Amino acid sequence: MAEVIANFSAGPSALPRSVRQAMAEELLPQADASPSIVEVSHRGPMFARVAEELADRLANTMGVADSHHVLLLQGGANLQFAQLPLNLAQAAPAGFIVTGHWGVKALAEAERVAQTHVIASTEASGFTTLPGELKCHAPVAYAHVTGNETVHGVQFDHPPTLNDASGQAVPVVADLSSEFLSRPYPYASLAGFYAGTQKNLGVAGLTVVGLDKDWWARVARGRGHRLAKYLDYQAWIEAGSMFNTPSTVAWYAALLMLRWIEAQGGLAALELRNRQKAQRLYACIDDSDLFYNPVDPVARSQMNVVFALADPHLHDGFLAQAEDAGLLGLKGHRAVGGLRASLYNAIEIEAVEALIAFMQEFERRHG
Amino acid sequence: MAEVIANFSAGPSALPRSVRQAMAEELLPQADASPSIVEVSHRGPMFARVAEELADRLANTMGVADSHHVLLLQGGANLQFAQLPLNLAQAAPAGFIVTGHWGVKALAEAERVAQTHVIASTEASGFTTLPGELKCHAPVAYAHVTGNETVHGVQFDHPPTLNDASGQAVPVVADLSSEFLSRPYPYASLAGFYAGTQKNLGVAGLTVVGLDKDWWARVARGRGHRLAKYLDYQAWIEAGSMFNTPSTVAWYAALLMLRWIEAQGGLAALELRNRQKAQRLYACIDDSDLFYNPVDPVARSQMNVVFALADPHLHDGFLAQAEDAGLLGLKGHRAVGGLRASLYNAIEIEAVEALIAFMQEFERRHG
Repeated sequence: MAEVIANFSAGPSALPRSVRQAMAEELLPQADASPSIVEVSHRGPMFARVAEELADRLANTMGVADSHHVLLLQGGANLQFAQLPLNLAQAAPAGFIVTGHWGVKALAEAERVAQTHVIASTEASGFTTLPGELKCHAPVAYAHVTGNETVHGVQFDHPPTLNDASGQAVPVVADLSSEFLSRPYPYASLAGFYAGTQKNLGVAGLTVVGLDKDWWARVARGRGHRLAKYLDYQAWIEAGSMFNTPSTVAWYAALLMLRWIEAQGGLAALELRNRQKAQRLYACIDDSDLFYNPVDPVARSQMNVVFALADPHLHDGFLAQAEDAGLLGLKGHRAVGGLRASLYNAIEIEAVEALIAFMQEFERRHG
Repeated sequence: MAEVIANFSAGPSALPRSVRQAMAEELLPQADASPSIVEVSHRGPMFARVAEELADRLANTMGVADSHHVLLLQGGANLQFAQLPLNLAQAAPAGFIVTGHWGVKALAEAERVAQTHVIASTEASGFTTLPGELKCHAPVAYAHVTGNETVHGVQFDHPPTLNDASGQAVPVVADLSSEFLSRPYPYASLAGFYAGTQKNLGVAGLTVVGLDKDWWARVARGRGHRLAKYLDYQAWIEAGSMFNTPSTVAWYAALLMLRWIEAQGGLAALELRNRQKAQRLYACIDDSDLFYNPVDPVARSQMNVVFALADPHLHDGFLAQAEDAGLLGLKGHRAVGGLRASLYNAIEIEAVEALIAFMQEFERRHG
C-alpha cells in the first residue's frame, strides 16, 4: 500500500493530527511515575479540571449554557434510542420522523419500551428525500428526528419544527450523532438532542445528551414508573454526569477536540470548510458519468457523501485501488452497500481533492 | 511536589509503563496519514484483528472459552446492577449477599426493576467481615455477590457456594470489578460475572460480562417481558459484542494489558506479587500503633487496603505529606473516609515498599 492520504471512516473516524499528538504525549510514560489523565480517579482534582473545562467548552460551543442540562453518558445513540422513550414517552407516545437507517432503528427500539407514532417517513423514496411540511395529528411526548443519516447520506439543513392538532409546537428531540459540532446549529431551540463523540469530537465512548431545562422539569414532575437509576436522566443531572466512572479517555479526547475547534476559528470556520469539502465532492459526482449519488440535492448530507458506480462490477476494483492509493474507509454501510466518504471535522480539504483526483482518474480508465 | 513514586488510585488506576508506552506509540501521528486504531471502523479489518485477539486472550486467560458467553459492554458495574435483574430476575427474585458499599448499591438498583431477597448481609459488623455458611431459603433466580469490596476492603478468597431449600445449588453471579484478572480464579464455576476494566485491565469504558451458556439458554427460554434491545444480553451475544460502536480505545488498552499479563507470567505470577504487596502493607499496619485496619483478617482485600489513623487529626496531614512524597491516590472513598491503597496489577512491589517506609517514618514523627 502507498502512503496513506486520508481516512474517510464513518466512525470511529480520523482525529486531527494535533489531537493525536496531544493524546500521545499525555500517555507517554514520564521520567517519574506521574500518572496520565486516564490513570487517576474521575473524582480527583486532576480529572476535575478536565471535566470542568469540558463542560464549559461544550455548553458554550453549543450555546446552551443556560437553557439545557448537558449530560455526558456512555452507550452511544443506541442506548439513547431506549433511554429517551423510557424517560420521556411513558405518558404519551414518542413521535418519529424517519428519514433513514438510524431513524428506523430508533423507532424499533422505542417500540419495545413505549407507545410510538410515526409522524412522517421518507421510506417510499428509498430515504433519498426529506419530508415536506410536517404536522402531528396524534398527541405525542416529542418528535424524534435524525439530523443527519450517515447510511443514506441525508441531512436536515435546519431542525424541523411542527405543531400538533391544537397548534402547539411539538418538542423536537434530535439524534445529532454524525453532525455534532460540525457547524453552527440551533441546539438551544431543541427540546433534546444527543450525539456520540466518535465522528466529530474525538473517540468512541462518550455520548452527549442535551435536555431543555424547562421541558425536563415539566416532564420529570409527571414521572412515576420504575426506571433503573442508571437509565434515569435525573440521576445523571444530580450527579453532574459523574453517576459512575466515565470513559475518562473519551472525555479527555473531547476536550482536546473542543480546544482544536476553537483554534480552527470555531463552528463557523468549520462549517465553511465542511461545506466546501462536500460541495467539491458532490460536484465531482454530478459531473461524472460513472459515479452517482441518489439523494435529492436539497437533502444531501454535508457529512456523509454516499455514492455508487453506474457499473456495479467496478465496485470492488474501485475500493481496492482506492486503498492502494492511500484512500481508506470508503466502503458504504453494510445495510446499503455502495461507497461513502465521511467528511467529518478532521478531514482536510486536500484529502477531498485527492479523492476527487483519484475518482476522475478512475473514470478516465474505466468510464 | 517531589518525583512521583506511585499512584494508588482506586480506579481509574495506574497502567504498566509498557502499556502506556504502547498506547502512546499507537496514537502518535505517523509520517503519512495512517490511522491509529481508535480512528477506524470497529467493523473494519484493522479493528477486527484487535477484537479477535482480545476475545481469544480474555476467554483463555479466564478459562471460560467453552463454558461462557463473554460480552464486551459499556456502562460499568452500575449498568450491570440493573441489566442483570432486568435479564435474569423477572421470573424469580434476585438474591443478594451484601458485604459492603457496592453490594448495597447493586441491591438498591435491583429493587427498582425486580423482586429481591437478601440472603445474607454483614452490615451489622460495619462490613468488616464475611458471612458464615450460606443458605438460601427463598426461591431466587441467582445469588449476587461482590467478590471484592473496594470501599470496605473486604474480599472473598473463593466465590461463595450455596444451596436453596431443596438442596439445589443456587446460580452465583459475581461483581468482580475490582479484582478482575488479578489472580487465578474459578470464573468457569460462576453462573455469571462482570467487571469493569479500569482497575486491573486498562482504562475505563469497557465492562466484561460472562454468562454460563447452559444457564443463559435455560433462563432465556422463559423470558417474555419487553426489554430494550440495548439491555438484552441476547442481542449482544448475537452481535458478538458489536451491537453498536464500542469504546475502541478501551478494547485496545485491554488487549495490551492481556499481552502484558502473559509477559508477566500469567495470573499465577500476578497473584504471587499481588499477595506479597498486600501482606507487606497489612503487616506494616498491624505492627503499627498509629495505623489500623478494621477488617477481619480472613476477610481482608488483597486489592484495596483500607486503613485509618488512630488519631484522626493526623489524617489531612498524612495525605498532604504523602502527596508531597510522591505517593498519590491514598484518600479513602468518600462514603467511608479514611485511607486506602489500591494494589492493582500495575502497582510494583517497590511502590508498596515506598509507602511502608513513608508510613513508618510518619509514625516515628507523629506516633
